[in-house]
Amino acid sequence: MKVNGTPTRSIWRVEAQPVVEIIDQTALPHAYRILRLASLEDAAHAIRSMQVRGAPLIGATAAYGVALALERHADDGALASAIATLGATRPTAVNLHWALARMRQHLAPLQVAARCPAAWQEAAAINDEDVAQNRAIGEHGLELLKPLTEKHGRLDIMTHCNAGWLATVDHGTALSPVYAAFAAGIDVRVWVSETRPRNQGLLTAWELKQHGVPHTVIADNAAGLLLARGEVDAVIVGADRIAANGDVANKVGTYLKALAAREARVPFFVAAPRSTLDFDCASGGHIPIEEREGDELRVLHGRNGEGQPASVRQLPENEAVANPAFDVTPARFVSAIITERGSCAPDQLHMLYPEMKQ
Amino acid sequence: MKVNGTPTRSIWRVEAQPVVEIIDQTALPHAYRILRLASLEDAAHAIRSMQVRGAPLIGATAAYGVALALERHADDGALASAIATLGATRPTAVNLHWALARMRQHLAPLQVAARCPAAWQEAAAINDEDVAQNRAIGEHGLELLKPLTEKHGRLDIMTHCNAGWLATVDHGTALSPVYAAFAAGIDVRVWVSETRPRNQGLLTAWELKQHGVPHTVIADNAAGLLLARGEVDAVIVGADRIAANGDVANKVGTYLKALAAREARVPFFVAAPRSTLDFDCASGGHIPIEEREGDELRVLHGRNGEGQPASVRQLPENEAVANPAFDVTPARFVSAIITERGSCAPDQLHMLYPEMKQ
Repeated sequence: MKVNGTPTRSIWRVEAQPVVEIIDQTALPHAYRILRLASLEDAAHAIRSMQVRGAPLIGATAAYGVALALERHADDGALASAIATLGATRPTAVNLHWALARMRQHLAPLQVAARCPAAWQEAAAINDEDVAQNRAIGEHGLELLKPLTEKHGRLDIMTHCNAGWLATVDHGTALSPVYAAFAAGIDVRVWVSETRPRNQGLLTAWELKQHGVPHTVIADNAAGLLLARGEVDAVIVGADRIAANGDVANKVGTYLKALAAREARVPFFVAAPRSTLDFDCASGGHIPIEEREGDELRVLHGRNGEGQPASVRQLPENEAVANPAFDVTPARFVSAIITERGSCAPDQLHMLYPEMKQ
Repeated sequence: MKVNGTPTRSIWRVEAQPVVEIIDQTALPHAYRILRLASLEDAAHAIRSMQVRGAPLIGATAAYGVALALERHADDGALASAIATLGATRPTAVNLHWALARMRQHLAPLQVAARCPAAWQEAAAINDEDVAQNRAIGEHGLELLKPLTEKHGRLDIMTHCNAGWLATVDHGTALSPVYAAFAAGIDVRVWVSETRPRNQGLLTAWELKQHGVPHTVIADNAAGLLLARGEVDAVIVGADRIAANGDVANKVGTYLKALAAREARVPFFVAAPRSTLDFDCASGGHIPIEEREGDELRVLHGRNGEGQPASVRQLPENEAVANPAFDVTPARFVSAIITERGSCAPDQLHMLYPEMKQ
């Protein structure tokens, strides 16, 4: 997609160098900053600290992290140790483990000397496939959205968190159908939930603005009212892990939107590529839910009067805080899951992926 | 209740003077500041700018606002004009109109010269009655909560916004049963929703801390997960207006908690005094929903490194924002309404208030 009119991805290898660059998402939307990742620890830190975030992008970054690790040490232990380090960064998004498992499977059989170049190649392949899959999600999602425009000649979409191109290598998951609709000339507008405590909705507003897609920011609390009032034609969200039965772990607050969408009889779509599907996980109850630092709630980030990044504290350090980062939406609230292979009811994933049947 | 161990109300008349004092709730919890209201415009501004907020306290302040207005001009037009000015401050909370109607009914038949002292007297009566009613709500609410402690020997309450003593003249509505349970020695803990965009949850955390009631602050988005996980025994909220059929307008986000409570089979209680009941309003669809300034979402408030009140901007001024301040929870999601006369199913309010039967 684009930043200030210039095409970009959210992560890329610096040509022929053992270096990866990312857009620092902890600085956005208040500052646009490119960061270099030159080591395993750089990559692990980027994932942990959410300089990169979004399930598909976490997976793509971890793949490059393995390549960065093997640049320094290519022995047998190095591969296992890099995978262990990266695998421990964040617990909920399964794309991380999917990407690491794929790297292991590809690299472990190779001779030690051959692993590093092969790692760069496989990481690039994972990244390129993510781009292609998300583009396909956009096309399949557009087919679901088109009939909804007939109601009043436009399309009011609600999303949660950021599942745009910033959350993937490119195109996005939930926002890919929105960009496809916009490109197809549909009058599409987006309700953007702030997404406390990390305010990833601001990332969504930022990237929609880069592409000229009309949007309105709301407090997370306003989602129920807007749905009940009939001001939303469809809710589309991404996912961090989808269990075999179609239960969906996604950014905390997703479940509340699903409840309100069902009550308002508004379709609730989940868009995710293959790497987000966890056929080894029977149901949502088995998905680990990450509990993050309380300071994410206690400290607020923005810009000061001079336009510089700044923050204020809204709660003292000793104020007790609970900060679960995800919740689980049961499959029965999901109208359809949109993947790169097409859309299906949440309990029909095995039809789209027959090779994964247990 | 108490601030730093000293008993206080949220509003009081300075003895024998034509002056009212309030706790400035726009400064809390970052600074504790007392403000003087000496004119109609002071009172109207305090309500509009949310220096006072919470439906019962808005009503109590408006009553004093009439007395302040009559101090300056006591002619016939002055009463009507004061009531019109105060009535236009905020649209959703019906307590405002209830208090103004009561002042009009009491004062209009009097000779002009008698109105000002009578206004002070009637405003004081409205304030004292609010205190007594909220204390009774605490007792009736406690009866509903006691059986819930049997499950695991303690009581985990979730609330939204601030419906504590700061939102009333004293005791609070939703928090009155919590304070009553705490006083009765029950091991009660409170999940406090941040309540974006105005973060009234911080007021709830502040007042619970003043009284030593254990509590944990959460992002509004986390409410669904906690309810689904079984970590909540009851949700209790206040109300800004309850329609004749039991539909409840309350702070935006309340409806999402009601949906999640129903799904988890957790009781959802609404606590409100008589002045919040609008028997002239048939159902929630007729309740006007206030749309507030977008800057409430765009600008974040807290303290800087020196502990002084400070703010940062998270969205530019030209970023489109929607900011509805309330939503409507249909009566079917409400387990019981707790009033000063006792508790009842939401469609049985006419049994508690037979004199209001239409």
